[in-house]
Amino acid sequence: MRKVYLDHAATTPVHPKVLEAMLPYFSGKFGNPSNLHDMGREAKNAIDEARGKTAALINAKPEEIHFTSSGSEANNFALKGLAQAYSQKGKHIIVSQIEHFSILHPAKTLEKSGFTVTAVPTDKTGLVDPRDVAKAITKDTIFVSIMHANNEIGTIQQIEEIAKITKEKGVLFHTDAVASVGWVPVDVQALGVDALSLSGHQFYGPKGSAALFLRKGVRIKPQIEGGVQEEGRRAGTENVPAIVGLGKAAELAAAEVRNRVSYLTALRDRLQKGLAEKIDHIVINGHPSRRLPNNLNVSMWFVEGESMLLFLNMAGISVSSGSACTSRSLKSSHVLTCIGTDAAVANGTLLMTLGMGNTDEDIDYVIEKLPPIVKRLREMSPLYEDMIKQEQVR
Amino acid sequence: MRKVYLDHAATTPVHPKVLEAMLPYFSGKFGNPSNLHDMGREAKNAIDEARGKTAALINAKPEEIHFTSSGSEANNFALKGLAQAYSQKGKHIIVSQIEHFSILHPAKTLEKSGFTVTAVPTDKTGLVDPRDVAKAITKDTIFVSIMHANNEIGTIQQIEEIAKITKEKGVLFHTDAVASVGWVPVDVQALGVDALSLSGHQFYGPKGSAALFLRKGVRIKPQIEGGVQEEGRRAGTENVPAIVGLGKAAELAAAEVRNRVSYLTALRDRLQKGLAEKIDHIVINGHPSRRLPNNLNVSMWFVEGESMLLFLNMAGISVSSGSACTSRSLKSSHVLTCIGTDAAVANGTLLMTLGMGNTDEDIDYVIEKLPPIVKRLREMSPLYEDMIKQEQVR
Repeated sequence: MRKVYLDHAATTPVHPKVLEAMLPYFSGKFGNPSNLHDMGREAKNAIDEARGKTAALINAKPEEIHFTSSGSEANNFALKGLAQAYSQKGKHIIVSQIEHFSILHPAKTLEKSGFTVTAVPTDKTGLVDPRDVAKAITKDTIFVSIMHANNEIGTIQQIEEIAKITKEKGVLFHTDAVASVGWVPVDVQALGVDALSLSGHQFYGPKGSAALFLRKGVRIKPQIEGGVQEEGRRAGTENVPAIVGLGKAAELAAAEVRNRVSYLTALRDRLQKGLAEKIDHIVINGHPSRRLPNNLNVSMWFVEGESMLLFLNMAGISVSSGSACTSRSLKSSHVLTCIGTDAAVANGTLLMTLGMGNTDEDIDYVIEKLPPIVKRLREMSPLYEDMIKQEQVR
Repeated sequence: MRKVYLDHAATTPVHPKVLEAMLPYFSGKFGNPSNLHDMGREAKNAIDEARGKTAALINAKPEEIHFTSSGSEANNFALKGLAQAYSQKGKHIIVSQIEHFSILHPAKTLEKSGFTVTAVPTDKTGLVDPRDVAKAITKDTIFVSIMHANNEIGTIQQIEEIAKITKEKGVLFHTDAVASVGWVPVDVQALGVDALSLSGHQFYGPKGSAALFLRKGVRIKPQIEGGVQEEGRRAGTENVPAIVGLGKAAELAAAEVRNRVSYLTALRDRLQKGLAEKIDHIVINGHPSRRLPNNLNVSMWFVEGESMLLFLNMAGISVSSGSACTSRSLKSSHVLTCIGTDAAVANGTLLMTLGMGNTDEDIDYVIEKLPPIVKRLREMSPLYEDMIKQEQVR
């Protein structure tokens, strides 16, 4: 049976070249970068090189990269670390309603400790209006955190426009770019952000590798304290193989990100067109053009996402239902709620995220397999029958 | 040239069987455990199995294991997470003066947010007197955190005795067992602790793998918030290969820990005896018997640790000077200060930590190489010459 993995927003395989780069650092060059002997220096050099490559991918300086263990850790670090470092300046923070939970939950925790949080809404395509951010900024605002691209619906925010506003108002700007780095060009100078989160396993790097970019001069309160690793900002023995892997993944992404955009856009559009032609009562979520090239988030009436997911799984096709990160939590997506998706159709949502290993044949296979699954499930739905009858009457 | 790695307290190589167990999970079985499809389930099963093995090593239940990215993260999680979860009960915490910085620094941070911290001292062998802990406990005390074995001097605390006291007084007890797990038998039931930190790269597992054991019923405030991973207690996509590696390292440790104790004790005693015979004015730090089997921490008068380290490095021998974790910070060890080591001799400290790859020949090589280095360095020290002259006069 054909195996088609369309869940790259959940995680990607480690690229063979990335694994190859990592392998020497497990059992051979296994030193602790804090040590002064050759074994330590070898490891230190390896992470320095990876820091340079990671910085280069987003046009940052090496010393602005702080390695963490996950995108969630990087986001928690940014939110809590910036809030604590700048609490003398003010106690107000701005986020968007469609942020990842690793932004929204720390924001809630900060609220409990005396901060005020404004969550700006989006339009029906998932776009934040920069004017809403401008309006939300008060004298008490210390930073804004608005994601670069949404991990579910793929909508890419107008970060440059928001950055102009934050710069003008003297407010820091963090962006969660976990979903976008590696898939579209990301340049911290062009975007104008002061802090940015990225995660290796989202773009062919290893799990356990991630980073927080912090523009030189921006202060932060460490969240994991102890040793003096990462310039004293994040304690704990560095995960050398993972960091080396992140560096290699960054190098590969820098070299081929433009190819990725064109290859995946064509493939995704083929999938979108094929499904829209064969399935009635289908809604494409997210922004029509400002969207990640590999993202297809579709809601179908009168059918449950989880059931489709399980039938697709039996056909060898891996996708997500609802949010990429909370599939096991079985809650409906806060992102779909925010963009105004009717709860009934939100339940019938599939998130399909493509990767460089997918082919036209894979896509055609999905276009062949999904429509009969939807048809079959709908035939078991009394609501669907009623609707068909009503349409026939009209 | 012979290569002798005597820095296992800094980090260990990944055991070949551990790497073998990890390899399928990078590019093949690369799924995200949160996903409901086969790729996700495969990853979920792998971490469930690793959780069981990790639990078994310390005689805990699988659901009591919470994976983190490092021992430092586990320690920060315990300190801040327990303090925040139990702050209604009280605001007092007890640690020892020789804890790792990943305990002491979070404790300082807690002090700034309204907690009170008592740091109990140790005797000259690095042992905490359980009666000092009993005396320090007040009605306001919520937990005690005292390490199982010290990472520098290897002293193993009387955890069972302290646990009897905390249990009697209704206070929680966390122990940092990062230095001991895998090297001596560790059983959370026998020790009687409520929480325990361990780290994979300390005993032939991969960097980036660690865990916090939390006895069932003990509450904790998550520090990395977002998704519902680790029972909602630690967000972020699980580092599947690292967790699998930790599980395998735990399995190996459980099977051979008693062999490790006897093999390493013999080897370490050979090293200790050899050096003590050949080098005058040498002090063995730590407890004579309650000490990690692979630990040898020696201070030598009239010679600098860093210089010895660099000369040993040229001879192919890797060791640490002072603390294993803060070699790059160039501060003298707070542990040696606490046990009353004179600052002058503390500067001449080498930490040598042995591993299962070391042989009698390795040890004899070190016994051959170190004494002439010490002699040569001392010959450049005017203080040493004065001392020799004075001794001759007497």
